[in-house]
Amino acid sequence: MNHTAELIAVGTELLLGNIANLDAQIISQGLSALGITVHYHTVVGDNPQRLADALDVARKRADIIITTGGLGPTYDDLTKQTICQAFGRELQFHPDILETIRAYFARTGRTMPENNRQQAMLPVGCTIFDNPVGTAPGCAFCEDGVHVLMLPGPPRECRYMFEHKAVPYLAFLTDGVIVSHEIRIFGMGESHVEARLREAMTTLTNPTLAPYAKENECMVRATAKAPDRAAAEEMLRPLVEQVRETLGDVVYGVDVGSLEEVVSGLLRERGLTLSAAESCTGGLIAKRLTDLPGASQVFRGGVVSYTNEVKTAALGVPEDLLAERGAVSEPVALAMAAGCRRLCGSDLAVSVTGLAGPEGDDRGNAVGTVFVALDWGDGALCRRLDLGPGRGREHIRNAAAQHVFDLLRRRLLGLPV
Amino acid sequence: MNHTAELIAVGTELLLGNIANLDAQIISQGLSALGITVHYHTVVGDNPQRLADALDVARKRADIIITTGGLGPTYDDLTKQTICQAFGRELQFHPDILETIRAYFARTGRTMPENNRQQAMLPVGCTIFDNPVGTAPGCAFCEDGVHVLMLPGPPRECRYMFEHKAVPYLAFLTDGVIVSHEIRIFGMGESHVEARLREAMTTLTNPTLAPYAKENECMVRATAKAPDRAAAEEMLRPLVEQVRETLGDVVYGVDVGSLEEVVSGLLRERGLTLSAAESCTGGLIAKRLTDLPGASQVFRGGVVSYTNEVKTAALGVPEDLLAERGAVSEPVALAMAAGCRRLCGSDLAVSVTGLAGPEGDDRGNAVGTVFVALDWGDGALCRRLDLGPGRGREHIRNAAAQHVFDLLRRRLLGLPV
Repeated sequence: MNHTAELIAVGTELLLGNIANLDAQIISQGLSALGITVHYHTVVGDNPQRLADALDVARKRADIIITTGGLGPTYDDLTKQTICQAFGRELQFHPDILETIRAYFARTGRTMPENNRQQAMLPVGCTIFDNPVGTAPGCAFCEDGVHVLMLPGPPRECRYMFEHKAVPYLAFLTDGVIVSHEIRIFGMGESHVEARLREAMTTLTNPTLAPYAKENECMVRATAKAPDRAAAEEMLRPLVEQVRETLGDVVYGVDVGSLEEVVSGLLRERGLTLSAAESCTGGLIAKRLTDLPGASQVFRGGVVSYTNEVKTAALGVPEDLLAERGAVSEPVALAMAAGCRRLCGSDLAVSVTGLAGPEGDDRGNAVGTVFVALDWGDGALCRRLDLGPGRGREHIRNAAAQHVFDLLRRRLLGLPV
Repeated sequence: MNHTAELIAVGTELLLGNIANLDAQIISQGLSALGITVHYHTVVGDNPQRLADALDVARKRADIIITTGGLGPTYDDLTKQTICQAFGRELQFHPDILETIRAYFARTGRTMPENNRQQAMLPVGCTIFDNPVGTAPGCAFCEDGVHVLMLPGPPRECRYMFEHKAVPYLAFLTDGVIVSHEIRIFGMGESHVEARLREAMTTLTNPTLAPYAKENECMVRATAKAPDRAAAEEMLRPLVEQVRETLGDVVYGVDVGSLEEVVSGLLRERGLTLSAAESCTGGLIAKRLTDLPGASQVFRGGVVSYTNEVKTAALGVPEDLLAERGAVSEPVALAMAAGCRRLCGSDLAVSVTGLAGPEGDDRGNAVGTVFVALDWGDGALCRRLDLGPGRGREHIRNAAAQHVFDLLRRRLLGLPV
């Protein structure tokens, strides 16, 4: 049987734009993996009448309703009451749940405010989803053929509760699976990717192929629906291969987290270590590398040289070179990488120096001019980037980091740089 | 007249959870500032029938409909066609728009693929929103008393087009304004904040007060609706003051971007410079500081010392101290800060050393044990944090950075540390 789910996020803070609906993303990913189709996401405020209206619409077009938010301890958390009214259930007090909440506060060195008591009220006869990562338990029940699941709103709690409580609850309802593979691309824009793969994208129905633009890269998703995972994989294998062949070495990975994850993997395989000297990226490259668990196996550290004095004192970039050529120049980028490699004792070192904005320099370099360099002891290379001022500081910093990782990947794989 | 808007985001990638609906957040913030109420967000896939259904529902309950997405050059971008069908308009080809798109490609050194041609098709008689930051123009028209606005999907483009094109279009429709102030808090949890402010939060109707949990901090939002901004501000002033008095020095700012922004401002006011030595945060502190435009006035740089060798080579932390006390210890944190201050020639230096996970160390320190230190030349201090293993690597790194900025803020303001 095919199931259709609808997500309803409850919270005025969403309608005011204070936060984005990350819960919908988390849950949609998981439902897709379970082969449960999602046709709509809805967001309503902390308003019982409009939530009741949204529930009325949703129960007509979906057989699984998942709500997020409105389970908190504060006066405007009304999800449980409103759902119980809509589906004709009472709320029941659970003393054991209250004790669990009290213990959670104690464990984190705090005392429980009395208003958390309402979190121990749950619909009669529901399946309780206890919450080890927060105070609001979730729950689920089935009424008139519609499964209603309630999850807490904070994304960290929602993710945990969805993965550990809702997924097992939903798994028994489903048959068939949807499997996707993400083909990640750096160095070719979405329009060009789509132009090259247009025929497959427009004619295929199962499996399918669809393009997505991402920040400073793009992605093609291949998706198949089949009775089981093995059958779906069988359908996807030739399609993924075709995309790789059509696009060439701009494809940097399939089902990988990021370009830096691929680079870290390559370094680990080869037993090599890396360090980074960063000017305009200001720690972003180090931060992205150390976001990965186990980073210390390949990343030794680096220097954020946001001033010329630090470039000289920490990296040994000669003062007269800075004076002659300016901080944003190829020889300075190369000297930063070489100095960083020596300082950190790493096999390779990368460097970035450039102008992320808001202003250019006094040598006529425009915002968006960036030099990225790589030094591997026996040699070095430098790439000049003109990232353009139009897209802003964050874009320039991210793009520069992407190019650094691309340089590393190409060098480690022996691809043209 | 009061206006009610509904946002419809179009894109299967949202229903699959590949991306979050950031556009809804951006637009909701802007509508709130214009005094336009938003009651619902809806997300539908790239499916003309379900988009048509969503439009039918929306036009009954809102007089402003704003769609995002589905204006791209690919075959599954169907928003304009579907809306035109629903509202009885034709699409018209605009050769001048096509030239603008072609010029955009040329400016970024690329040639325009032919499929971008469909982006030059727009509803007859619409207001065209030309798009200098991407290829998809937006547009707006009014039919049967409902204003329909179409904006591109990529958040960067959506933000620009909303702020520069949609806001001026909408401004003439509205009367009255909603003004909000965000009171930002570090060092007190949402439950406790709410418990202290419960009376105001539950009894006030205009202005209102509402609490929000954020990652590693929390926030209280005061909102007033009035005929003009001055009247709204008049209503908000005593309320914000009351919150400040009730909560005390955990309030770090009102309408500020972040804790690091406040710290940067304090450093700039006092003419002081900062540097950072980071172990487990791996560049995050430097990255957050250099996210701010003009960071070079206060931030000189720093060292990411992800290995003991770099702690010694770059920061001068004695080898025997590392051997005796371990890298995750108070004396090492203090030596890192002192060494960083000397290396970078800054007035102050901060340091972080700790265990972000996945594993503890061989001295019995658990994941989540972090030392943060601050050195100001004439003195230094260190704070030990037990951030707990439960919330994961990213949480620990973010929390450690927050504590570093809190330490700096308290030191600079002479508050208890």
